[in-house]
Amino acid sequence: MEIVVVGSIALDTIETPWGKAEDALGGSATYASIAASYFAPVKIVGICGDDLDEKAHQMWRDRDVDTKGLQIVKGGETFRWGGRYHQDMNRRDTLFTHLNVFEHFHPQLPESYRDAAIVLLANIHPSLQLEVLDQVRAPKLVAIDTMNLWIDIALDGLHEVLKRCDLLFLNDEEAKQLSGKSQLLPAVEALHAMGPKWVVVKKGEHGAILFTESMRFSTPAVLLHQVYDPTGAGDSFAGAFLGSLAKEGEFGDDALRRAMVHGTVLASFVTEQFSVDRLLGIDPSEIVGRCEELSAMTRWPEKL
Amino acid sequence: MEIVVVGSIALDTIETPWGKAEDALGGSATYASIAASYFAPVKIVGICGDDLDEKAHQMWRDRDVDTKGLQIVKGGETFRWGGRYHQDMNRRDTLFTHLNVFEHFHPQLPESYRDAAIVLLANIHPSLQLEVLDQVRAPKLVAIDTMNLWIDIALDGLHEVLKRCDLLFLNDEEAKQLSGKSQLLPAVEALHAMGPKWVVVKKGEHGAILFTESMRFSTPAVLLHQVYDPTGAGDSFAGAFLGSLAKEGEFGDDALRRAMVHGTVLASFVTEQFSVDRLLGIDPSEIVGRCEELSAMTRWPEKL
Repeated sequence: MEIVVVGSIALDTIETPWGKAEDALGGSATYASIAASYFAPVKIVGICGDDLDEKAHQMWRDRDVDTKGLQIVKGGETFRWGGRYHQDMNRRDTLFTHLNVFEHFHPQLPESYRDAAIVLLANIHPSLQLEVLDQVRAPKLVAIDTMNLWIDIALDGLHEVLKRCDLLFLNDEEAKQLSGKSQLLPAVEALHAMGPKWVVVKKGEHGAILFTESMRFSTPAVLLHQVYDPTGAGDSFAGAFLGSLAKEGEFGDDALRRAMVHGTVLASFVTEQFSVDRLLGIDPSEIVGRCEELSAMTRWPEKL
Repeated sequence: MEIVVVGSIALDTIETPWGKAEDALGGSATYASIAASYFAPVKIVGICGDDLDEKAHQMWRDRDVDTKGLQIVKGGETFRWGGRYHQDMNRRDTLFTHLNVFEHFHPQLPESYRDAAIVLLANIHPSLQLEVLDQVRAPKLVAIDTMNLWIDIALDGLHEVLKRCDLLFLNDEEAKQLSGKSQLLPAVEALHAMGPKWVVVKKGEHGAILFTESMRFSTPAVLLHQVYDPTGAGDSFAGAFLGSLAKEGEFGDDALRRAMVHGTVLASFVTEQFSVDRLLGIDPSEIVGRCEELSAMTRWPEKL
């Protein structure tokens, strides 16, 4: 199966307690497309200025990501985001947001994109996510990732998107904020009622939980000696999750469990360096190694 | 195997967003002894005033907890603690601490306690934990639970205890504080170097992780519709963990995994009501049911 990913392409300026990166390639569509490309064919939809260097475009070519849906604005500046992480990496401050070319963006799906089986509406404004949904013909699976910003300023649009989605990715704070419930289980029940039959609650260093009608599946995060920069971990989780499903071509319970594991593992790589530096050039054996590490960490006793 | 539990016996005044309890039975030894009693014989060491009502004493009798090591001070007042939880139940404020009879407490182990195979030094001042260690003869397993307060004001004593312990229970913030490391894995390595060969990091609603030389085992928390009051969850975890090991009589990897599961499950019951209200009278079938729920939530796909 093929995946269409729509989201942001950004140049990020990031400070963490361990270092700083300026104008480093980022954005939800960037992370999600690269992570998904380890598993299945990916087509990206987005916008950038011609200040995005050739290295970025070469990266998509190297990962066989189809960029026909990428709009490159001549003389335009790429979206820029600045953020700062503290010792507690689960929290961050946004320092600045320059929309630039994003301000007048309307996603245009090339004809060859419109029959994709899987659509990932990565983290962008809900109105843009809706425009994509109006252009795809009969996806088998529509997934949405979102963030607190859209819950704050575009709630109606977000609800519209949710009605048309099968799968919602969000973190635990967002789950509580969007549902208005202070505890996780009632929050997830409320989210299901908004549309998505599957909800994945991402919890950063505490792992993630998948909720479907028939099951719940919890994975811990991969334990790392040093989380360097968590930016893009959630986007990479979503990309790898859907890539894993696309590769299998079916969405049974075990396929969903494997998707959770692959999402968790790809997200772990991202956090080890700034930008996509660690996400590029992962050896397949490294992915298998971390899957086995997670498996060992959750190996249940032979009997209770 | 038998377990000796030393810790506090308290009357707690607790406020949560959902309600308030005054002078409700609590304390680390109370929770730990009751939780452990579902699995193995327990002997408690502690102190209380004669204001502790007959109901509390009857409770220990009902659970077959040996109270020969319990000092009841005539005319004395039981230790009292007041705390307030907010919407984010992972954080709490201490409103008051009245040591009362605790101020001059020195644990005295009856002769019949001194050959116990398992010793739980539940959360009390490290100097009292040391006094207990000087009275037991040849325990097979010594476990310690601690808190941020002792890291702040009794660090040297805590280090002394740690050198003589096999197993350390603490939460993730305490792990970082005690080790001086901001990330979990280096923190746990530093804790191992302080003495305990096994470390259990408790993460509240995010579950717990056990670290030994040969393995790591992660369990999610039981998902509840309503966490009512988390007080005593960590103590109950420790009690049930050791109870489970005591019942098995050996400390192999699968026995440790089952201990993690039992700790997680007993902790989940405690949080559903104030005080020990839910911890008393749990039907064994309810314990099995929640173990199976956790097992289902972490069931790994048949193949990766």
